[in-house]
Amino acid sequence: MTTPKTARATGRAGRASGSKKQPPLVFSFARGKADGDRSMKDLLGGKGANLAEMCNLGLPVPPGFTISTEVCTWFDRHGGSFPRGLRKSVEDALAKLEKEMDQRFGDPDAPLLVSVRSGARVSMPGMMDTVLNLGLNETTVEGLARRSGNPRFAWDAYRRFVQMYGDVVLGIKADDGEDFDPFHRALSALQKRRGVKRDTDLDADDLRALVATYKKIVLDRTGKPFPEDPKEQLWGAIAAVFASWNNERAIAYRHMNHIPGDWGTAVSVVAMVFGNMGPTSGTGVAFTRDPATGEKRFYGEYLMNAQGEDVVAGIRTPAPIEELEESSPAAWRELQRIQKLLERHYRDMQDLEFTIQDGKLYMLQCRVGKRTGFAAVRIAVDLVKERRITKREALERVDPEALNQLLQPVFDPAEKERASREGRILTRGLPAGPGAATGRIVFRPERAVEVAERGVPVLLVREETSPEDISGMQASRGILTARGGMTSHAALVARQMGKVCVAGAGELVIDTKKARMRVGEHVLEEGDWISLDGSTGEVIAGEVPTRPSEVIEVLFGKKRSKKQAPGPVYEAYSKLMKWADEVRTMGVRTNADQPDQCRVAVAFGAEGIGLCRTEHMFFEESKIEAVREMILSDGPEERRRALKKLLPLQRRDFEGIFKAMDGRPVTVRTLDPPLHEFLPHEEREIKKLAQEMGVSRRHIESKIAQLAESNPMLGHRGCRLGISYPEITRMQTRALFEAACNVAKRTGKTPHPELMIPLVGTARELELQAADVREVAENVFEKKGIRIPYLLGTMIELPRAALTAGEIAEHAEFFSFGTNDLTQTTFGISRDDAGTFIPAYIQQEIFPADPFAKLDRAGTGRLMRIACDEGRATRPKIKLGICGEHGGDPSSIEFCQELGLDYVSCSPYRVPIARLAAAQAALRSERSD
Amino acid sequence: MTTPKTARATGRAGRASGSKKQPPLVFSFARGKADGDRSMKDLLGGKGANLAEMCNLGLPVPPGFTISTEVCTWFDRHGGSFPRGLRKSVEDALAKLEKEMDQRFGDPDAPLLVSVRSGARVSMPGMMDTVLNLGLNETTVEGLARRSGNPRFAWDAYRRFVQMYGDVVLGIKADDGEDFDPFHRALSALQKRRGVKRDTDLDADDLRALVATYKKIVLDRTGKPFPEDPKEQLWGAIAAVFASWNNERAIAYRHMNHIPGDWGTAVSVVAMVFGNMGPTSGTGVAFTRDPATGEKRFYGEYLMNAQGEDVVAGIRTPAPIEELEESSPAAWRELQRIQKLLERHYRDMQDLEFTIQDGKLYMLQCRVGKRTGFAAVRIAVDLVKERRITKREALERVDPEALNQLLQPVFDPAEKERASREGRILTRGLPAGPGAATGRIVFRPERAVEVAERGVPVLLVREETSPEDISGMQASRGILTARGGMTSHAALVARQMGKVCVAGAGELVIDTKKARMRVGEHVLEEGDWISLDGSTGEVIAGEVPTRPSEVIEVLFGKKRSKKQAPGPVYEAYSKLMKWADEVRTMGVRTNADQPDQCRVAVAFGAEGIGLCRTEHMFFEESKIEAVREMILSDGPEERRRALKKLLPLQRRDFEGIFKAMDGRPVTVRTLDPPLHEFLPHEEREIKKLAQEMGVSRRHIESKIAQLAESNPMLGHRGCRLGISYPEITRMQTRALFEAACNVAKRTGKTPHPELMIPLVGTARELELQAADVREVAENVFEKKGIRIPYLLGTMIELPRAALTAGEIAEHAEFFSFGTNDLTQTTFGISRDDAGTFIPAYIQQEIFPADPFAKLDRAGTGRLMRIACDEGRATRPKIKLGICGEHGGDPSSIEFCQELGLDYVSCSPYRVPIARLAAAQAALRSERSD
Repeated sequence: MTTPKTARATGRAGRASGSKKQPPLVFSFARGKADGDRSMKDLLGGKGANLAEMCNLGLPVPPGFTISTEVCTWFDRHGGSFPRGLRKSVEDALAKLEKEMDQRFGDPDAPLLVSVRSGARVSMPGMMDTVLNLGLNETTVEGLARRSGNPRFAWDAYRRFVQMYGDVVLGIKADDGEDFDPFHRALSALQKRRGVKRDTDLDADDLRALVATYKKIVLDRTGKPFPEDPKEQLWGAIAAVFASWNNERAIAYRHMNHIPGDWGTAVSVVAMVFGNMGPTSGTGVAFTRDPATGEKRFYGEYLMNAQGEDVVAGIRTPAPIEELEESSPAAWRELQRIQKLLERHYRDMQDLEFTIQDGKLYMLQCRVGKRTGFAAVRIAVDLVKERRITKREALERVDPEALNQLLQPVFDPAEKERASREGRILTRGLPAGPGAATGRIVFRPERAVEVAERGVPVLLVREETSPEDISGMQASRGILTARGGMTSHAALVARQMGKVCVAGAGELVIDTKKARMRVGEHVLEEGDWISLDGSTGEVIAGEVPTRPSEVIEVLFGKKRSKKQAPGPVYEAYSKLMKWADEVRTMGVRTNADQPDQCRVAVAFGAEGIGLCRTEHMFFEESKIEAVREMILSDGPEERRRALKKLLPLQRRDFEGIFKAMDGRPVTVRTLDPPLHEFLPHEEREIKKLAQEMGVSRRHIESKIAQLAESNPMLGHRGCRLGISYPEITRMQTRALFEAACNVAKRTGKTPHPELMIPLVGTARELELQAADVREVAENVFEKKGIRIPYLLGTMIELPRAALTAGEIAEHAEFFSFGTNDLTQTTFGISRDDAGTFIPAYIQQEIFPADPFAKLDRAGTGRLMRIACDEGRATRPKIKLGICGEHGGDPSSIEFCQELGLDYVSCSPYRVPIARLAAAQAALRSERSD
Repeated sequence: MTTPKTARATGRAGRASGSKKQPPLVFSFARGKADGDRSMKDLLGGKGANLAEMCNLGLPVPPGFTISTEVCTWFDRHGGSFPRGLRKSVEDALAKLEKEMDQRFGDPDAPLLVSVRSGARVSMPGMMDTVLNLGLNETTVEGLARRSGNPRFAWDAYRRFVQMYGDVVLGIKADDGEDFDPFHRALSALQKRRGVKRDTDLDADDLRALVATYKKIVLDRTGKPFPEDPKEQLWGAIAAVFASWNNERAIAYRHMNHIPGDWGTAVSVVAMVFGNMGPTSGTGVAFTRDPATGEKRFYGEYLMNAQGEDVVAGIRTPAPIEELEESSPAAWRELQRIQKLLERHYRDMQDLEFTIQDGKLYMLQCRVGKRTGFAAVRIAVDLVKERRITKREALERVDPEALNQLLQPVFDPAEKERASREGRILTRGLPAGPGAATGRIVFRPERAVEVAERGVPVLLVREETSPEDISGMQASRGILTARGGMTSHAALVARQMGKVCVAGAGELVIDTKKARMRVGEHVLEEGDWISLDGSTGEVIAGEVPTRPSEVIEVLFGKKRSKKQAPGPVYEAYSKLMKWADEVRTMGVRTNADQPDQCRVAVAFGAEGIGLCRTEHMFFEESKIEAVREMILSDGPEERRRALKKLLPLQRRDFEGIFKAMDGRPVTVRTLDPPLHEFLPHEEREIKKLAQEMGVSRRHIESKIAQLAESNPMLGHRGCRLGISYPEITRMQTRALFEAACNVAKRTGKTPHPELMIPLVGTARELELQAADVREVAENVFEKKGIRIPYLLGTMIELPRAALTAGEIAEHAEFFSFGTNDLTQTTFGISRDDAGTFIPAYIQQEIFPADPFAKLDRAGTGRLMRIACDEGRATRPKIKLGICGEHGGDPSSIEFCQELGLDYVSCSPYRVPIARLAAAQAALRSERSD
């Protein structure tokens, strides 16, 4: 064994400790003094760093020590072995801990018991393993019984330990075909024999007998007796927790959250304190503010005479935290002091775990609390108001994606009232994940994935969720559980995912095997529709129509009187957006083709249109006929006649858009899709079209056959159409400039058209199209007696365009990156066909993320950089933007900032997200300068 | 007017004159002294430069002067005006000419007559205009009559002049609806009136009257009298000849031959000499060697008492040149002396034009003679034998494409001419697969196999071909398609198979169901005979007899006795190839999938296989069933069972290939096309398959629907299949290595497999596939007890692969550029669909050439360069090759040499071409070093 020593490790140690010395492997902590602090999350994990920090703050934390993430990385890379020196360091830390606690491993009178806990840099709740009550054996269990005066408690702790250790360390799981592991089955058998329903009804002797049964199970399954030596137990547990970094669900979670596989987890070994020692003990979790709404109120829940796992598992429904004041007043006062101190200290909302042992409060964990989008925005803005953080910090605190929640629809109150009148409110649970969701119920996570893949909205119904359910939860619109509280697994994960969640709806009787649930007299089967109100906890039978959220209501609501004050959500939202706009350096435009879309986007803060797809207009009932006539025409003369009919229609479209955009720049792309997209494909429709057009069906069919393509994505489309049929480009140009002149005259406000040629692959294509455009524009200006300033540019959406951008820029006043097509051609992947393999590719880490969602910097991004550099070399002031889907993705927006683009453009509903993401990108680039 | 002065012009002048001075605009020449020489083709055109050179050699050339190509460029760019100084220069040159000839423009006693001729840098025979006999008017015609003592001759010259001038300069053409121009009609009318058949039967008076009629035509059509002033005539002619640079046929010719539009033509004004002055005069053309066969014999034809145009027009049949010895012995002797001198001087076969005026020989032109591929090879090799040129020069003298002719079966030229006379040329498509093929047409591939099995020569006629047609194509002598371009599926496969192919014959209307096609008014049924000339694209009704070429006869002929000496064509071919191999630095491999293709390629000099497409094997009758079973299987287990059946079949394929390649490297690509390509699409076939497989039709149909893709080119194919179904890659790998081991054991000669993963876009894909390959290989080696050295590499055929080649090279021992797909994705153009716009793109000069035929250096080529640079940075010794169609294209091969590739790979029949092209590229790169 040698000491772990990687470049990364050294670098990290340097940052963490401020020196270049090899960092230690083990970090002790005890009240008032700790080897680490909160800055050392990379090395100690979030849990370890915060335990150390709380110790340094003098808070009541059970002492212990943390083994660093470096050891995990080493462990991974060396087949599960430990680095040299670790054993000694752990022994030392353990000796220190024994001294601190005045307890010793295996000491029959004062036995030291510890928990062995995982904890990565970022919270991965429930994904990795933990072992509690470690140190118990036949001798120490008696000591614990004596010391606590509670033999039932001691034997309960012991049986829990054997079960947990058996599962986590020894790998004893349910057999194939069995629903439960053998420990669970032995417990059930005992309960049955003793005629009781719950484990709390078993007495000390029962539990002692159960431990014996458990140990026999261990011997049978592993061929070895259960380890008696606490040190052997400890090393087994440490190895198992490190190994759990690479269990299936942890890997899945990391993929979902883009967490690198080489970060590793730390392991914290902490002296046990017991919330289940009797009626004056208890345990709970709390948030310094409401994690659902962001309201400033202490919020949480607790259970007396319970261990932490009982709260999270949701087996018993906990009490609201306020009631603690009555049941344990001293602990309540201490908790109040501590929660205020911690929020002030960390300058953010905290998520706390605590245990009360015999009336005394211990802090087991604190971390920045997960929150909904609503809460994220409100807390960030409130903290600025309270002068805890700066505006810039507030901007960085909110995940841009979280803004989505503020824009999502809520149930229409009138409709909900109707449902209520109709007796469709089935039950009410805890409002654990706000929002409104309607869908078909399923009872198994795999089923959720299957059904969702078919495009059906799904709600997952579970007794309680577990980390293994993650992908099923991801696939669902909302989650409904029968058990568990506001901080149960389901609630926590749902909020993080931005999913609607109603938790702990205790009236539900779920039969997973039969895929059925009962609520009172209602029986619902898989596939039935229900609706969940995650903001009230209501569960409603059938579909309930939704209506716009508060933010949407304020932005677009027509009925709202001007005087009515907007609610707190809108207020926080608008403040944050204002700050974002002050900070960001890139413009934010929208992709919109219709006046109403334009108005939505402008209300969301769009500063112009980055992509107006003219073909979308063509599909309208009134136009498709003329379009088809144009396509079916023989020769340019006939085509020109058909185009003449389209001209006024298209001009009217542009007028509407120019008016809606009120002088803001409008980037219009000339016709892009292959012509066959405009022709019908079903026999019935072909027949109808033939009648309407007064041509033979065969004529239309032969035209369709003639236009058919093997790979339409790479076919006769984009500027290739404009080159083949210049009259199309000329008609569109004429419509555009006539519209601009008309609007300028009528409104007195000059539109700013930016005309964009798609799918250019060579400078010459643009040159030819540009000549047509400029000629038509001049002609229009002359006729109208007015000049409209305009830009003429091109999409960069083919690798060759990027590679020859220097030449293309000679004819282009701007580039707009069409990263959808650029990604398709760079990867050689058709988005329409990628569904068959992209999920597997993400699973196998071939793609770190879907390249159509998140810009691939090494490939697509490199081409963009080439195009930016060479475009600027030719035309230093060339305007650069992006109008692919990536324009609304925060990570891609950050890359656009790096490239120095002038603007990003995205769909209307992503404009707020883009504004915030652009602000964050600007802040980051400022810092890196 | 200012002096023309472009950077290009100055540069060229610098090179031509050795000084930086502005070159003169006009260059005089007369026997023994000329302002120019043969090095000045860019400025003087080929004709002007060679006239000057012949003067410098002291040869009898009529004096004159050449106006440079610079003037043409100026003229083009300035709306048909002339640069300052030109008028004066021409006046001076004219004065000099008058003095030299002792004749003057308009002089009634000694009238100077001139011809005004075009002449570009490279010969563009007949594309531009010429005016003869200029200087004649009512006065000088009498002088010419007196001086020649032949009034008929003088008036004949005059009427020819007015007609030619009227056509070329004054633009008097046939009226709409008329077959002939008015001059021609007037001549015919006169002949009719006079009751004679030929113009030679008209006497001087007739011709005088005809001139009057002609002049009236000019007055009627132009509103102006025919110009009497010779100088006015001259300037008109000069302008017209310059303008003819941009006539339609010249532009078309330039496109076809990749001649830049800004080269321009020179104009030579040459004193007239007359071959039609009487029986001691004459005119002729000759070659210093036979331009068809290359045989060393003076070759040509002449006509006594005629002007040059009479020889070309074919109204009178000329006599073989040897007869000149009798009819004009002095001129013959002089011509013999001159032709030998010129070939020696130019060190190449010359094409000569001469005129004999009253027994005296004048040289009107000499240039390097055009020749067939046969002649090109033979002449180059003979000149080396004769110690006129070096081997290297010989290599550079032969256009690699010309070698094609030496390999293809040939039509008997007399037979083709007969077919043409009989109106049997049906249509013309793209010459996609060179050679000559005759056979009975069929419209379905199965039918081709059936009919061919009966020993009937078959031509397969398809709308377009698909991979399913392979066996039908293999069974056919040639392929004719209505759609698709030079690189369509049909063209590609045909060339690889060495089949004749005419593609994209758009006039064909094919009705596959009725087994019938229509071309114009011709209707052909299955079984009718046609002939395809794959070198010209002609489709001919009926049989035209063919025979194998001499080279093929020697390389593959079975009947040839070993002792029979190969003919001169083979001898020249093999010498040239030997020299090419000595010079070239790049290897030449072949793309071949079957043992017989391999043997052909090896005979042509292939040094290995650069691309063995495993899927082509799958389409064979014996395998397609197992392949389909594999595709239709549910889950990996069933799939593995189906693959097990394929394993021995594929192994046998590989064994055959390894044996045929006899230890040469064999690059095998794992399965590439999307699986749906292997499934049937017609109802009948689906039904049949369902029966064979014992599954329901619906099962097959649903699988087909499930596998259908919008853009198969960008879909689930290449390594994406290998990632989704690792068992396929593993089966292929196993088959490959088991075959290699077996062949090594059986033959004692170790095969050198190079396994290649297709369509890689990320390093990780290759990493995953490579892991499978290496594991299977080790397993096979262990079982077989023998190790086969092998390489593992990847195609670079996606932009992203090129852009991340540095990472990919960590897992790749070689890169093979798949430039077909790389071009498709770089341009975003599907080869299958490009037919609709690529021709127009080439026409409009958007593409200088079809990028699928000739590597696009700015786009595709730039990606290749990035990949080479970054691949080498990671792995300095990485092996680099190309296996796209471009690997057989000389211009692309030159670029591969620039990139420093290790080898090119092309279809078997292009191997000789690639060898020569690689030699030329090596010579050029040596020079540029």
